[in-house]
Amino acid sequence: MAGPVEIETASPNVKEKMEILTDNFDPPAVVVEPLLPVVTVANGGPRESEEEEEEGVEKPTKKSKEIELGRNVHSTCLAITEPETNDEFTGDKEAYMAAVLARYRRNLMERTKHHLGYPYNLDFDYGALAQLQHFSINNLGDPFIESNYGVHSRQFEVGVLDWFARLWEIEKNEFWGYITNCGTEGNLHGILVGREVFPDGILYASRESHYSIFKAARMYRMVCVKVHTLVSGEIDCSDFRVKLLDNKDKPAIINVNIGTTVKGAVDDLDLVIQTLEKCGFSHDKFYIHCDGALFGLMMPFIKRAPKVTFKKPIGSVSVSGHKFVGCPMPCGVQITRMEHINVLSSNVEYLASKDATIMGSRNGHAPIFLWYTLNKKGYKGFQKEVQKCLRNAHYLKDRLRGAGIGAMLNELSSTVVFERPQDVEFVRRWQLACERNIAHVVVMPNVTIEKLDVFLNELVEKRSIWYQEEHVQPPCIAADIGKENCACSLHK
Amino acid sequence: MAGPVEIETASPNVKEKMEILTDNFDPPAVVVEPLLPVVTVANGGPRESEEEEEEGVEKPTKKSKEIELGRNVHSTCLAITEPETNDEFTGDKEAYMAAVLARYRRNLMERTKHHLGYPYNLDFDYGALAQLQHFSINNLGDPFIESNYGVHSRQFEVGVLDWFARLWEIEKNEFWGYITNCGTEGNLHGILVGREVFPDGILYASRESHYSIFKAARMYRMVCVKVHTLVSGEIDCSDFRVKLLDNKDKPAIINVNIGTTVKGAVDDLDLVIQTLEKCGFSHDKFYIHCDGALFGLMMPFIKRAPKVTFKKPIGSVSVSGHKFVGCPMPCGVQITRMEHINVLSSNVEYLASKDATIMGSRNGHAPIFLWYTLNKKGYKGFQKEVQKCLRNAHYLKDRLRGAGIGAMLNELSSTVVFERPQDVEFVRRWQLACERNIAHVVVMPNVTIEKLDVFLNELVEKRSIWYQEEHVQPPCIAADIGKENCACSLHK
Repeated sequence: MAGPVEIETASPNVKEKMEILTDNFDPPAVVVEPLLPVVTVANGGPRESEEEEEEGVEKPTKKSKEIELGRNVHSTCLAITEPETNDEFTGDKEAYMAAVLARYRRNLMERTKHHLGYPYNLDFDYGALAQLQHFSINNLGDPFIESNYGVHSRQFEVGVLDWFARLWEIEKNEFWGYITNCGTEGNLHGILVGREVFPDGILYASRESHYSIFKAARMYRMVCVKVHTLVSGEIDCSDFRVKLLDNKDKPAIINVNIGTTVKGAVDDLDLVIQTLEKCGFSHDKFYIHCDGALFGLMMPFIKRAPKVTFKKPIGSVSVSGHKFVGCPMPCGVQITRMEHINVLSSNVEYLASKDATIMGSRNGHAPIFLWYTLNKKGYKGFQKEVQKCLRNAHYLKDRLRGAGIGAMLNELSSTVVFERPQDVEFVRRWQLACERNIAHVVVMPNVTIEKLDVFLNELVEKRSIWYQEEHVQPPCIAADIGKENCACSLHK
Repeated sequence: MAGPVEIETASPNVKEKMEILTDNFDPPAVVVEPLLPVVTVANGGPRESEEEEEEGVEKPTKKSKEIELGRNVHSTCLAITEPETNDEFTGDKEAYMAAVLARYRRNLMERTKHHLGYPYNLDFDYGALAQLQHFSINNLGDPFIESNYGVHSRQFEVGVLDWFARLWEIEKNEFWGYITNCGTEGNLHGILVGREVFPDGILYASRESHYSIFKAARMYRMVCVKVHTLVSGEIDCSDFRVKLLDNKDKPAIINVNIGTTVKGAVDDLDLVIQTLEKCGFSHDKFYIHCDGALFGLMMPFIKRAPKVTFKKPIGSVSVSGHKFVGCPMPCGVQITRMEHINVLSSNVEYLASKDATIMGSRNGHAPIFLWYTLNKKGYKGFQKEVQKCLRNAHYLKDRLRGAGIGAMLNELSSTVVFERPQDVEFVRRWQLACERNIAHVVVMPNVTIEKLDVFLNELVEKRSIWYQEEHVQPPCIAADIGKENCACSLHK
């Protein structure tokens, strides 16, 4: 069992192989294989056949449904090279790496400046926390129970969880939660808790739910029923009712969107609960997970918004930390009722901790980033930022419409949906998220009027080039956001 | 849909509630509920009844199987408070937060210094990367296909993946992989790919596998067969054979441990493959996932180790990035064959990217940390560090035995297993991972001879206090690591 061990190096073989790979490397071979030739939209399914078309509304063309995938980066990656024996002496490698990083940093600055499409608040200053980067901080296992690993940040994590528990109105001794790696992990956790509570439950989610909900259904082998949406993007509760009544004998697990990904539509939580009750589902026969990725943190500060609170019969809420709060890396918060969590957890002696999380080892820096910002801004600070975002979003929508561009802004949202710009390079430059014929800008705290003006002027200028000839027309987006919001030649 | 929006603040209510919660808060209520009174070891199950006991070997006592859970941290968390209106003027809050962070930093330094039990290399210097903390770097979706979000680090990520692909001998156009959030995510991904390849496959894993494997089985609703282990901790292939033959009609998905969590035991990959073949499982009837959390990066540099390579019929390999490499936050690498990944992926237009990852949004900083260290150290640097770790592990084992303390060190491992120290405070101080009657020290690059000496001297001194009276004896650990490694009164 013991005894001296011989050690060898892998590098000579490896070096040889590296060269072979570099010579024979055929970039298209990497791209071509994994791409399916024709693609259906993940959360839409075969859209035309299922939905009744509104009269006079153009169908999205087939072409617009094929996904334009991003560039393959395999050929442009920064290869790792074996250090030369005299590297430490010459400093060549260090200089090379420093140059790569400096170039990368310039690129990040430029990309950060021209970003509009994803709901990430890029405006933060965590300089005070730079000192912590020297430590390997890991909150493995349960946030509330210390593990034997001492380099953790549970005291910050639990502080953050308490803050969200207050926001969503659940008592300290009644909730359980943790800081996740992203919104998806929150959704994966919420749906899993739902399934463990109702092993034979059926998952209901509107077709405009985030794709992680459907990923969860597949991972967990759950029956998933997709519910239609209104033009706003909200769940269509009359369709929900029909589908519930089709499956009255099975418990219901429902994903409620507190802001859909594409249109920022907020499902009507109260109407969802009412529909369940009217269909004969008592509170012990359903589990609601609220996917509050972005708006989970904005809604509490908007008066007319349906309130997300554990005083209503919901099972869990998740929100992203890198979105409205802003954080160097993705993270999120997941809160559920303690009564539900026992079904999920098992004691793991190795950690001296129960582990009801999905991930086990968990980034201990993220809770400190969140703790820092929540402490600095407080509820009042977020309220002000929400106000600003909604104001700026209205500005953008009004100016788009003023320029004759079809646009929609849901009442509770700062996501402005408009016609998809024709030019892929323009979409890339402003990092717009697109789906079918529409694109969106998510107005976050770092998106100022000045930035919107630059964007708008550029868009208007480009459009005058794209559509200078009469046979090239802006796309009709009535099928996506309704006739009243479309400004195509047919609907304007 | 549009129109002005009224905004309100949630803070007055919240503030009131915060006070109520603080007053009435009953810490035990939080701990007591989720803990089951008697606990079986998660990856062991009902151990005594299933395993034949070796003659003359004491059973672990019932007491030792109950988990000593860590302290509840809810009562000691760092609460987030609403900023006072004049905070910006007085600077009180900023001063308070700076003080909290400075105290926390001192605590991290002390905890980092006294850490031995978890396989994390705490010795790293990423000062050159501190400048990147200002950016919200997110590699959402597939690493090889750019999404529209421009603030990413795919060029670094793919460089790291290529490095591991070379290490594990798979061509650039034949693999797919990504940088995960931790070892668990790699395992969750590997097992999921296995299940998608063989939807009715049975999962086989040795009982000393990491608990994330059993978590995966439960999440994915898979039939999971636990296989016995040898005293070393390796999978017992004769038991594996019996269990395979019991289920000859179903494909096999096998988790192979490249270093178990507790004993650092390396499953014999070649024997596992041989066993499968002898039982009539052709290569299209099984899928092997190699959990190389720690040793996946050490083994390539140890001559006598069974080689982990895609030239053998394996489906995926995962390794942690925060373990042997060292990283401020948990991360990992997962590599699989491109032919397997199609079954898992679906095109998601929102990202302009396929998403075959578990998480969707992914930490873009982790790949840069890994890229930086791999570039600086290279294969040769890791080889040297592996050598040092194995040497120091032997030193520790020899000194433990010299002091009359039962200890084991597997041939290919730097994990030294020994009797569990009696005192919980001692275990906490050195952050030892414990299971039943054993504890372990994982000798990582930051664990020097000097640190081991301090630890050893302290342990020997404490033992002379713990065991000064004759009726208090060190635990028998023969059931855990074999008679020959036990130094209890019966076996020494």
